[in-house]
Amino acid sequence: MMIPKGKLISIGGNEDKGTEPEPLFTQKNNLNFFELQILSRIMHECGGHDAHIEVITSASSIPEEVGQNYLDAFGKLHCTNVRIMDIRNREDAQNPEMIERIRNCDGVMFSGGNQLRLSSIFGGTQFLEIITERYFHEDGFVIAGTSAGAMAMSNTMIYQGSSSEALLKGEVKITTGLAFMRDVIIDSHFVKRGRFGRLTQAVAANPSCIGIGLGEDTGVLVTEGRYMEAIGSGLVIIIDGHHIRHTNIADLKEGSPISIENIIVHVLAKGNCFDLKERKFYVEGVTQNR
Amino acid sequence: MMIPKGKLISIGGNEDKGTEPEPLFTQKNNLNFFELQILSRIMHECGGHDAHIEVITSASSIPEEVGQNYLDAFGKLHCTNVRIMDIRNREDAQNPEMIERIRNCDGVMFSGGNQLRLSSIFGGTQFLEIITERYFHEDGFVIAGTSAGAMAMSNTMIYQGSSSEALLKGEVKITTGLAFMRDVIIDSHFVKRGRFGRLTQAVAANPSCIGIGLGEDTGVLVTEGRYMEAIGSGLVIIIDGHHIRHTNIADLKEGSPISIENIIVHVLAKGNCFDLKERKFYVEGVTQNR
Repeated sequence: MMIPKGKLISIGGNEDKGTEPEPLFTQKNNLNFFELQILSRIMHECGGHDAHIEVITSASSIPEEVGQNYLDAFGKLHCTNVRIMDIRNREDAQNPEMIERIRNCDGVMFSGGNQLRLSSIFGGTQFLEIITERYFHEDGFVIAGTSAGAMAMSNTMIYQGSSSEALLKGEVKITTGLAFMRDVIIDSHFVKRGRFGRLTQAVAANPSCIGIGLGEDTGVLVTEGRYMEAIGSGLVIIIDGHHIRHTNIADLKEGSPISIENIIVHVLAKGNCFDLKERKFYVEGVTQNR
Repeated sequence: MMIPKGKLISIGGNEDKGTEPEPLFTQKNNLNFFELQILSRIMHECGGHDAHIEVITSASSIPEEVGQNYLDAFGKLHCTNVRIMDIRNREDAQNPEMIERIRNCDGVMFSGGNQLRLSSIFGGTQFLEIITERYFHEDGFVIAGTSAGAMAMSNTMIYQGSSSEALLKGEVKITTGLAFMRDVIIDSHFVKRGRFGRLTQAVAANPSCIGIGLGEDTGVLVTEGRYMEAIGSGLVIIIDGHHIRHTNIADLKEGSPISIENIIVHVLAKGNCFDLKERKFYVEGVTQNR
């Protein structure tokens, strides 16, 4: 397996208008996706104030509003070489200007919205190939994503599943994401939307995968495709299904409750690290522990 | 440690008017606390249709409505020797008629509401002493409880803690319950209210305790104070903190995010069992496995 030279930053997101509706949780609509602290970290990982960052708003149903919000937020950080890629379909993704920009930027940022839009617009495109290629081969190239943009980073992507019914078989729907990572399943808005059940079901059904539940205003920085550092103000929940003994998930009828023995869970706060390959928790930076 | 001869039945509850308000989740108020299936199980464990069951509505702020609802529900099961104990304060609990009835019934059922009312009304009373005594010494004596009535069964009782902020230190408040069990922490409405974080924090702070998260319309039947069988249509989540390695909970400032390494989680559906003493999951009845 090739070791990527670039970095991934997955963020749990915050309530935003473009996100899939989940009626119980529609609080006041809020375009402040996350605190400037995380955005500042993304900027620095991309190379600092002069970094050329492309914000890809394709997941959102309100791309113009979302794009403007990113310009404003990066502007507050005096980061002004930020551009919006308003790609709405597969044809837009083939636009030579977009291809050129994606070849030259220092990092990309996928906005929130609907993760199925990301996989259906970009799957199999040259655009996605270039991003993936650069991520694997170029030191310092950054792929960031929030909410849907974070969930789409893995090969195994949740695209549907209510929070409250998520431990009934069939309630969680999985498909293929953008595949910058494999063997992980990323869920967002994890704490406030009570998604423990949904990610647990996804992991029980895909036990080669580590579940990564990202809280609001919280994310992970992934280096070498395996070392994951928690960033932001909230929590990252790791669900490890490798030690599952009994589960009835294969034999159940759709809609029946699932039983699972022995899931390992870790709760990471800012600065804690997790090695995805060894499946180990580190209180401090993994580099010190190597 | 003495082995109790009686049985406990703890139920996760369902939305009811008398329950502590949690604004995000106030759906349509509903007095159908749980399905008749569970109520029927309680009736049978108490001795069948003629069982003398005392329903204690003290946790509720609307005891008359709640009491009537129980009479109606048990009535549907043709279980008619059910009486309501409308005990509203410590003085009521000393009423000789109540004392006499609690000495003679086959089982008691604590309704939902506010668990602090249960501990403050019954703590240190002769009434509670008699129930406890009967539970430990009389074969077949049943203590059932739903929602607040389930949460109060342990010595270590959660009485406050929002779902969404529950992994910030200090957000989960613990006190002493009715203490029919020790070394467990019971949480109710577990799945729909997304309380994984709250119970995890309680367990991390009290690692000698096993966390028992009861879903709606779901419960556990506890025999010999240790063998726990899942009953009802939903899920029981077990959170075992005995293998926690790192946690920062002791050193953190209030309001900071908690980190925890290595929590073991089990998800039990109907018929699955858990041995609280050995901390082991059994797919089928524990008795067959002994």
